[in-house]
Amino acid sequence: MNGGIGETSYANNSLVQRKVISMTKPIFEEAITNLCISNNFPGKLTIADLGCSSGPNTLLVVSEVVKIINNICRKLDNRSVPEYQLFLNDLPGNDFNTIFRSLPSFQENLKEQMGPGAAGSCFFTGVPGSFYGRLFPSDSLHFVHSSYSLQWLSQVPEGIEGNKGNIYMASTSPAIVLQAYHQQFQKDFSLFLKCRSEELVSGGRMVLTFLGRKSEDPSSKECCYIWELLAMALNDMVTEGVIEEEKMNSFNIPQYTPSPFEIKSQVLEEGSFAVDRLEVSQVNWNAYGSNNGLNGADGLINKDGGYNVARCMRAVAEPLLVSHFGEAIIDEVFDRYREIIADRTCKEKTEFVNVTVSLKKIG
Amino acid sequence: MNGGIGETSYANNSLVQRKVISMTKPIFEEAITNLCISNNFPGKLTIADLGCSSGPNTLLVVSEVVKIINNICRKLDNRSVPEYQLFLNDLPGNDFNTIFRSLPSFQENLKEQMGPGAAGSCFFTGVPGSFYGRLFPSDSLHFVHSSYSLQWLSQVPEGIEGNKGNIYMASTSPAIVLQAYHQQFQKDFSLFLKCRSEELVSGGRMVLTFLGRKSEDPSSKECCYIWELLAMALNDMVTEGVIEEEKMNSFNIPQYTPSPFEIKSQVLEEGSFAVDRLEVSQVNWNAYGSNNGLNGADGLINKDGGYNVARCMRAVAEPLLVSHFGEAIIDEVFDRYREIIADRTCKEKTEFVNVTVSLKKIG
Repeated sequence: MNGGIGETSYANNSLVQRKVISMTKPIFEEAITNLCISNNFPGKLTIADLGCSSGPNTLLVVSEVVKIINNICRKLDNRSVPEYQLFLNDLPGNDFNTIFRSLPSFQENLKEQMGPGAAGSCFFTGVPGSFYGRLFPSDSLHFVHSSYSLQWLSQVPEGIEGNKGNIYMASTSPAIVLQAYHQQFQKDFSLFLKCRSEELVSGGRMVLTFLGRKSEDPSSKECCYIWELLAMALNDMVTEGVIEEEKMNSFNIPQYTPSPFEIKSQVLEEGSFAVDRLEVSQVNWNAYGSNNGLNGADGLINKDGGYNVARCMRAVAEPLLVSHFGEAIIDEVFDRYREIIADRTCKEKTEFVNVTVSLKKIG
Repeated sequence: MNGGIGETSYANNSLVQRKVISMTKPIFEEAITNLCISNNFPGKLTIADLGCSSGPNTLLVVSEVVKIINNICRKLDNRSVPEYQLFLNDLPGNDFNTIFRSLPSFQENLKEQMGPGAAGSCFFTGVPGSFYGRLFPSDSLHFVHSSYSLQWLSQVPEGIEGNKGNIYMASTSPAIVLQAYHQQFQKDFSLFLKCRSEELVSGGRMVLTFLGRKSEDPSSKECCYIWELLAMALNDMVTEGVIEEEKMNSFNIPQYTPSPFEIKSQVLEEGSFAVDRLEVSQVNWNAYGSNNGLNGADGLINKDGGYNVARCMRAVAEPLLVSHFGEAIIDEVFDRYREIIADRTCKEKTEFVNVTVSLKKIG
């Protein structure tokens, strides 16, 4: 992700992710309610948001969770609210400084909204590290949330040298490439589940939202199209000699957009969790343009869908591209990408598919 | 503190603080040993370093603590090592990004030194916030460490307008100024003790090292001289019209360097802790020049004590000076300060006094 708060930062280009969090709120509301009731309202609740990023969404989830629990307490004869220890996790390169510097004013706002008693018992901490490894002591978490993070793999799969002209799974990818991507997903997600099962208390809950797909075909257009359009921009630049063909052929996105069936299969195979709910939802590529009442501050609303979508993708993918292709070509890549997207979004309906799974630790 | 890793950063100018940590190691070693034995070796240990800053010292304390406990385990018939949750705290403006980005290589080193089993069970987290307030849930900490942080007050004391020509307590400060400083210390330290007593488990331990003094006179030269020399540099610039007199008169350092007696009195008055040990030590202003086997990388060792001490003080105090006087005069202030210090350190022995207290939570 791009750090900071500039024009191309993730912080300023994460409206799609925000929409997804608000769409999945009923699912984590249900999970938290069940957690509180079945664990007989612990006096201290530890909550982790994995892949919290740095921006307006970072504190959104944990503050929603706190509000949900405080509401439950109020409904239940004004039961006293618990103390919350809120763990915000992302990779060590995430911009934690920006999150931490926004905390004092965030906590002031929370106090105004919830009263000083409830807000005063929220303790925020940052946890740097990959969630494909242990992050917390054993039996120490009550609730884990992760949104739009688990589609990122721990690495580009090995053995996909044959994926020429593509940067992700595509209809023209050889079968061995699709298989390598799927195996990397299975390995990573299985490790994720194992680590979290060790960290969660008995009866603990997880709500995970993946950027995913509905189809069982991993090279389905619904999940691969957005990257195919970026590959088009890069391939044009190869044709024009701006990018070396060899450079292009060795670039692949470390992502896997799973189907609900693949997620469920992996959960059952790993064996530590029961599936409570499994849901699919959709969100327009251009969150500004989907008539959702959300407004951008820059007057670009609806005017140029390509601009918004390309900017959103740039905030996410720029560091990957820079480390492979270098800084110099980046503006041109995203200018071309924007034009290609603008052309397509006029002609067809373009949506991301989200898969949300609500899990309960067995035993 | 100055962030980053540049020439004037705290990270590159914190050798005095490092020396103090190594001098006080026997005290926290004893406290931790007693903690482990009396708490019957908990399987999970939560350890907090308050005022961890950002630099080579940040991870020093927690790694020392982990090594001490692992050694105890080895001595006791190879008892299995606990899981460690290590909380690094400082103000939200601290440079946590630099700490977090150094963690992967730090953990690699730890693994080499301690074996993968022991190092793999260290979970690092960052906690942004003032330690003059609650930072952790109730009964959640086993051990708290803080070095060279608690002499910093939560604010400049009120009612010290009469401290003209000085920037800290000085022999020429009116009695009311000394009193205001002392009261602010009492209020802050008392709140600190109350918060930590709520957060520590029963039998939990704290080892706190203050920049302090031996004398009962709060304006004693042993603690005030270093700031008096900075005041001299500023006053010279007032005389020359570079700094407005009014600006100088309204600048005061939010620090209080307590005596062992004052620390003990406050602990007893607050009532949550018993004093296990109370020790005084000294460290040369110029840590490079004190024949301690530590070497600087820049070839300036022993050549210019004034340079090193001024740079060390600059790393600590620059943000305070910049926010009051502005950026423009800073280089000149510290050039003059360096010359004044160089002159004094040639002529007399200049040492910081450290007061370390080891506390056990009562009940």
